[in-house]
Amino acid sequence: MSNFRYSDAEIDAVYKVIAQRRDMRHFLTTPVEPAILAKLLAAANHAPSVGLMQPCRFIRITDLSLRKTIYEQVQEERLNTANALGHSESDERESEFMRLKVEGIMQCAELLVAALCDHREAHIFGRRTLPEMDLASVSCAIQNMWLAARAEGLGMGWVSMFEPTKLSTLLQIPQGAKPIAILCLGHVEKFYELPMLVETGWTTQTPLSELVSENTWIK
Amino acid sequence: MSNFRYSDAEIDAVYKVIAQRRDMRHFLTTPVEPAILAKLLAAANHAPSVGLMQPCRFIRITDLSLRKTIYEQVQEERLNTANALGHSESDERESEFMRLKVEGIMQCAELLVAALCDHREAHIFGRRTLPEMDLASVSCAIQNMWLAARAEGLGMGWVSMFEPTKLSTLLQIPQGAKPIAILCLGHVEKFYELPMLVETGWTTQTPLSELVSENTWIK
Repeated sequence: MSNFRYSDAEIDAVYKVIAQRRDMRHFLTTPVEPAILAKLLAAANHAPSVGLMQPCRFIRITDLSLRKTIYEQVQEERLNTANALGHSESDERESEFMRLKVEGIMQCAELLVAALCDHREAHIFGRRTLPEMDLASVSCAIQNMWLAARAEGLGMGWVSMFEPTKLSTLLQIPQGAKPIAILCLGHVEKFYELPMLVETGWTTQTPLSELVSENTWIK
Repeated sequence: MSNFRYSDAEIDAVYKVIAQRRDMRHFLTTPVEPAILAKLLAAANHAPSVGLMQPCRFIRITDLSLRKTIYEQVQEERLNTANALGHSESDERESEFMRLKVEGIMQCAELLVAALCDHREAHIFGRRTLPEMDLASVSCAIQNMWLAARAEGLGMGWVSMFEPTKLSTLLQIPQGAKPIAILCLGHVEKFYELPMLVETGWTTQTPLSELVSENTWIK
């Protein structure tokens, strides 16, 4: 056993939050305390980043007209996605998709946009052959925030159904930078017991045994 | 306050593990219990994934000759990175880089390769405009594993200094799939107090205030 092992109660808390975190789409409008939001952003900033480049930027959306335009941009992409699903799968799948709630932008207490910063080409460490490690770093930051939010009793949802160039124009995100997440954060009536896409019957989960192999690709 | 808020002690444990997790490069060779490894992989599989596509695959490396070849591939890319840093920054920076320990592949108890699965183009949900969301999902899975490992008293390091096509050939990773992390996992003599790249003076951390803005890009 490791000397650095946390207490059983602490370990249980860590596994519990990992298991109970959900990608939320249903929110209450109750405000989030600013001190909690600050703690969540600090949690994000504790995430690892490739070569410590810290590529993650957050834009907090407090302007209602901006929020509405973001909502409209997501609705537009939702229709484009439905259409693409209709073409690649079936008309039935398109209809099923249209019945899913894919965002909670107008209900959530806090709306944030997470983006990759500009001038990333200057960071070579760990990125010479895998430049996309900057996105990996931003994703780890968001996962930290997601877990901390769940422990605080708050839900978060990562919406990636948007056209990044349009959102960049709206938020004056400079060339070279790129928005990668619209984050809906807030109080919830309840947390889904299972991922919403499982609860709604959209898809099923693949068991871990099918995702892990030894020394070579899984057959 | 949320009805779903964890106890203060649980919340403290979550913030503690987020703050104390480190990207480790120094390991002891003490074995990791198989039951703990299984718990860490299960934690990874609890991560969110775009449209629940679960794009993450893990290959556990137990064959010593494979481990050595992976080590050699990383050494090769380490030299290429050093050379690139010499060109883009300075000869001094190249020398500083060469003094850093950038991996613990031959010492760590467990070596895993994490990869994006093949046939990802079939997954449109949340990826029509942002196909790279699959990498975001894998990164969230790895962050879960990282945090769970820290709570268990184990260190983990994400090495991205390798040529993905060479590693794919070595591990028979099929076309369309892509390795994105060599994960070193194991017991450690101690955890770094600060990120190793800060402790060694390689770089400094940007404060959170410079990464967050309101309604528009940070100036």
